[in-house]
Amino acid sequence: MTLKNDRFLRALLKQPVDVTPVWMMRQAGRYLPEYRATREKAGDFMSLCQNPQLACEVTMQPLRRYPFDAAILFSDILTIPDALGLGLYFETGEGPRFRKVIRSAADVDSLPDVNIAAELSYVTDAVKVIRRELDGSVPLIGFSGSPWTLATYMIEGSGSKDFRIAKQFMYDQPGAMHQLLQRLANAVTDYLNAQIEAGAQAVQIFDTWGGILTPGAYAEFSLAYMEQIVKGLIKEREGRQVPVILFTKNGGLWLEKIAQTGCHGVGLDWTIGIGEARQRIGNLAALQGNMDPTLLYASPATIRKEVGSILADFGNGSGHVFNLGHGITPGVDPEHVAAFVEAVHELSIGYHQE
Amino acid sequence: MTLKNDRFLRALLKQPVDVTPVWMMRQAGRYLPEYRATREKAGDFMSLCQNPQLACEVTMQPLRRYPFDAAILFSDILTIPDALGLGLYFETGEGPRFRKVIRSAADVDSLPDVNIAAELSYVTDAVKVIRRELDGSVPLIGFSGSPWTLATYMIEGSGSKDFRIAKQFMYDQPGAMHQLLQRLANAVTDYLNAQIEAGAQAVQIFDTWGGILTPGAYAEFSLAYMEQIVKGLIKEREGRQVPVILFTKNGGLWLEKIAQTGCHGVGLDWTIGIGEARQRIGNLAALQGNMDPTLLYASPATIRKEVGSILADFGNGSGHVFNLGHGITPGVDPEHVAAFVEAVHELSIGYHQE
Repeated sequence: MTLKNDRFLRALLKQPVDVTPVWMMRQAGRYLPEYRATREKAGDFMSLCQNPQLACEVTMQPLRRYPFDAAILFSDILTIPDALGLGLYFETGEGPRFRKVIRSAADVDSLPDVNIAAELSYVTDAVKVIRRELDGSVPLIGFSGSPWTLATYMIEGSGSKDFRIAKQFMYDQPGAMHQLLQRLANAVTDYLNAQIEAGAQAVQIFDTWGGILTPGAYAEFSLAYMEQIVKGLIKEREGRQVPVILFTKNGGLWLEKIAQTGCHGVGLDWTIGIGEARQRIGNLAALQGNMDPTLLYASPATIRKEVGSILADFGNGSGHVFNLGHGITPGVDPEHVAAFVEAVHELSIGYHQE
Repeated sequence: MTLKNDRFLRALLKQPVDVTPVWMMRQAGRYLPEYRATREKAGDFMSLCQNPQLACEVTMQPLRRYPFDAAILFSDILTIPDALGLGLYFETGEGPRFRKVIRSAADVDSLPDVNIAAELSYVTDAVKVIRRELDGSVPLIGFSGSPWTLATYMIEGSGSKDFRIAKQFMYDQPGAMHQLLQRLANAVTDYLNAQIEAGAQAVQIFDTWGGILTPGAYAEFSLAYMEQIVKGLIKEREGRQVPVILFTKNGGLWLEKIAQTGCHGVGLDWTIGIGEARQRIGNLAALQGNMDPTLLYASPATIRKEVGSILADFGNGSGHVFNLGHGITPGVDPEHVAAFVEAVHELSIGYHQE
């Protein structure tokens, strides 16, 4: 199938583009009134994720408002632990929680052997429905949480300020932690491959909590497993390469190591200059990012100025997918998102003329 | 007055030491049952800070248990905004809050002109009482929050997940933000100089929230003001240099710029390898840090192993003050702290033989 707009995929492969492509992490989300209405209709958050038609509807909503260059599957990063029987749920106004937690080597051993791709057919069904609805307009991104990030929630049972239970497990029982991470790496590989087979044209691994580790622990307990996944993913589909983006929040000190995994794109948060990042990783990978998401609360003029600075900092040529440095938050005015997307497309033209 | 143990000061000046000195951020704190008892007696947290005898008592408590190489004044980083009339208070189980907040240029203009050193005599009184009680056993560290960190709380009115109100103020009203930061930089300079005159033998500036900024905003809105303060501080007292430590949490990408301010020590969190940090800033400054504080929840054997790794990573010679990468948390077993301090002193001997 021909893609009408393949800027996003081309930029990840450093092929020439006319303007810098842009999408936003959590672009299908609570800042949109139509999202809140659909979510209301679905009941709770997981029911929304598990209904392919409604998941498709919220995936499409931001694309009707803004000329984003990619769609991202609407789902949650924690579907795998849920499929492993931990019982994911959301309390109103709180983050994700699990009914069961992992606290020992025995708990790791007792995790069931499940066929992740089969258990999560609601996700692959959603991918198929969305691809049909997109009808080749823009590519669809699939995603998963990283093994380390999944493990932190599985051990803590929820988010945490310092993740001390997960870290204590890692520090005192490294063998059991590695067993857990290996099982999760296998599951994430199967899961992302199932998304690719169902139609995802690129995938992103969200390593939301890799940045809370020491450099040594990050390499051993987070990055090594993401590298395994990168190597295990389907490389080509529908006659096109399927690029992989790794995003470790607060991973700015480790960009070279992330780029060396063989991923196509490295996601940046806003604490690292994108020009400096480009200098550091050179031709190893494309970059995705990295406007501070709180800038969307500033005036449209300020947003446009910041977009211009980031584009100038990256400089000429392809290899940049514009994005925020983290997900958009619920309080943002949708008009500000319009100013953001418009600024990226308008102000980037000059950087793509050979 | 002769100091019986001046390792801490010598390490910050890169003078030879017998073993690596060690102290812990928040060493006087809730992990100690005797602290909890004194705090109970004082009533609320601010009453404890404002009573020089009780502040001295809790400052001394960790030194009675452990052979720390420095004491740190017991106080709060937010005493200055409180003195400016914002009304600092603490809700049980919550972080700090202010009764009044800064939300406009007019709010900045209406901040009173106060003599910070005079308004905060309860702090300088505590410094004098503690110095008397220490009787030259170890040096006393004074401290303040950084202007940017104080401003975030003054604008938000409390801690925050993403500090979006403070950042929106910075992005949309940079002029007013600079006015606020300039007033705070002047106040912090006066405040730290008053602590030095009262007897503080080194000072640390806690830039707890500098790490949430973009590199450009960090340089302009946080570091520039810390540099002003460094340059405005009393350089020598009682015949000794008074070293200054700058600690920006999540500042690992900006170490060179921090070291170039003229500070004596750069505080590191645990996300940067101390060996890499030493390579990067070379002879510009000493380093302080940087064990992950959650390691104190691991077994004493694991703690000892990690201390050994950090010492080996720093390598031979002076210029390292051992510390955690952030404050100790309330749930730590005091026995684990004993293992930590003992490991630093025992395992560092070999790195200090010429």
